[in-house]
Amino acid sequence: MDKERLNQQFAFIKEIDQEKMIQRQTLLTDKKTKENDAEHAWHASVMALLLSEYANEKIDVLKTIGMILIHDLVEIKAGDTYAYDEVGKLTQKQRELEAADAIFGMLPNDQAKQIRALWDEFEAMESPEAKFARVMDCIQPMMLNDATDGKMWMQNQVRLSQVLKRNEKVTLGSQILWQYAYSEFIEPNVLSGKIIDDRKEEEK
Amino acid sequence: MDKERLNQQFAFIKEIDQEKMIQRQTLLTDKKTKENDAEHAWHASVMALLLSEYANEKIDVLKTIGMILIHDLVEIKAGDTYAYDEVGKLTQKQRELEAADAIFGMLPNDQAKQIRALWDEFEAMESPEAKFARVMDCIQPMMLNDATDGKMWMQNQVRLSQVLKRNEKVTLGSQILWQYAYSEFIEPNVLSGKIIDDRKEEEK
Repeated sequence: MDKERLNQQFAFIKEIDQEKMIQRQTLLTDKKTKENDAEHAWHASVMALLLSEYANEKIDVLKTIGMILIHDLVEIKAGDTYAYDEVGKLTQKQRELEAADAIFGMLPNDQAKQIRALWDEFEAMESPEAKFARVMDCIQPMMLNDATDGKMWMQNQVRLSQVLKRNEKVTLGSQILWQYAYSEFIEPNVLSGKIIDDRKEEEK
Repeated sequence: MDKERLNQQFAFIKEIDQEKMIQRQTLLTDKKTKENDAEHAWHASVMALLLSEYANEKIDVLKTIGMILIHDLVEIKAGDTYAYDEVGKLTQKQRELEAADAIFGMLPNDQAKQIRALWDEFEAMESPEAKFARVMDCIQPMMLNDATDGKMWMQNQVRLSQVLKRNEKVTLGSQILWQYAYSEFIEPNVLSGKIIDDRKEEEK
């Protein structure tokens, strides 16, 4: 038994428990509890298991789920940046790169490189797996926001142009899921005013 | 687009959000928040991604993670049965079988069969993947109980014989991880009295 290797692996495993304490701007279907990063990663992983048939390109499902499971770990050290927090997003990349060095660096060398490469690939959003993982990452909160009467969209005064910009790359991973999510989760909330329809403002 | 199929899949995806509301008898490393089933499944899935090298037999990691991701879904309808609740365990199997019919039956037929088969395989604990998934399922809370000063073991007055019985099959999935977990997470808590050492009682 390589005890030093196991110690490093279990130190990392214990450290990432903190992912469960990072709150997101999404409500659970009880309509009161804020979701945390670990719950989000679990939910999006199950979605990948069930929805891979809709990927634009053939994907390696294990690689995709691996990305989803670890994609938010940097937030343990960098904090969560809300999708529509334009100020926080200015420093997000640098904070997250430093966090990635620190958190993945806890693992044995070979695994540190391997998991870091998986995270870099997710962030680059170029491979079929990264594009599809991004679809899950985006559609999961969209589904929950719709299921909770758009409360968080209203509370954060989210505008349609922001939703479309945030999700502009979803179509690169799955045209079918983008089409479904737009008609089921976004459009009804624009019509009911829970997402602010700023298309007319832009026309002015 | 097969809208009916997508509707079924997303009805299931929305339903399983409730997994996040099922509390377990394990504390997070903040030493005060009880863990929920979704967090546990996420944590154990990341562990499988990192620790598969220690499986006794070669395993299909995707299949293993698939099992871990969905293994507790039946508890949405059947409730959580604490590992050391001997009364609850008497009716657990029947409650969980009925729950499996209801929850997996929400999916399109082909996926209902596929995910149900994965759950049945996990429960049977015969395949290399099911045996290793069980190792993750058992060692994850053991690690957290140790990291939180054995509080939940003490609160539930857990005895060593119960821990050994609960985990007797861990060694079938990974001898190395059982050896490590026993020496790192169990033995120190027996020595400090946080797990009741009932070996002497048995000798009487």
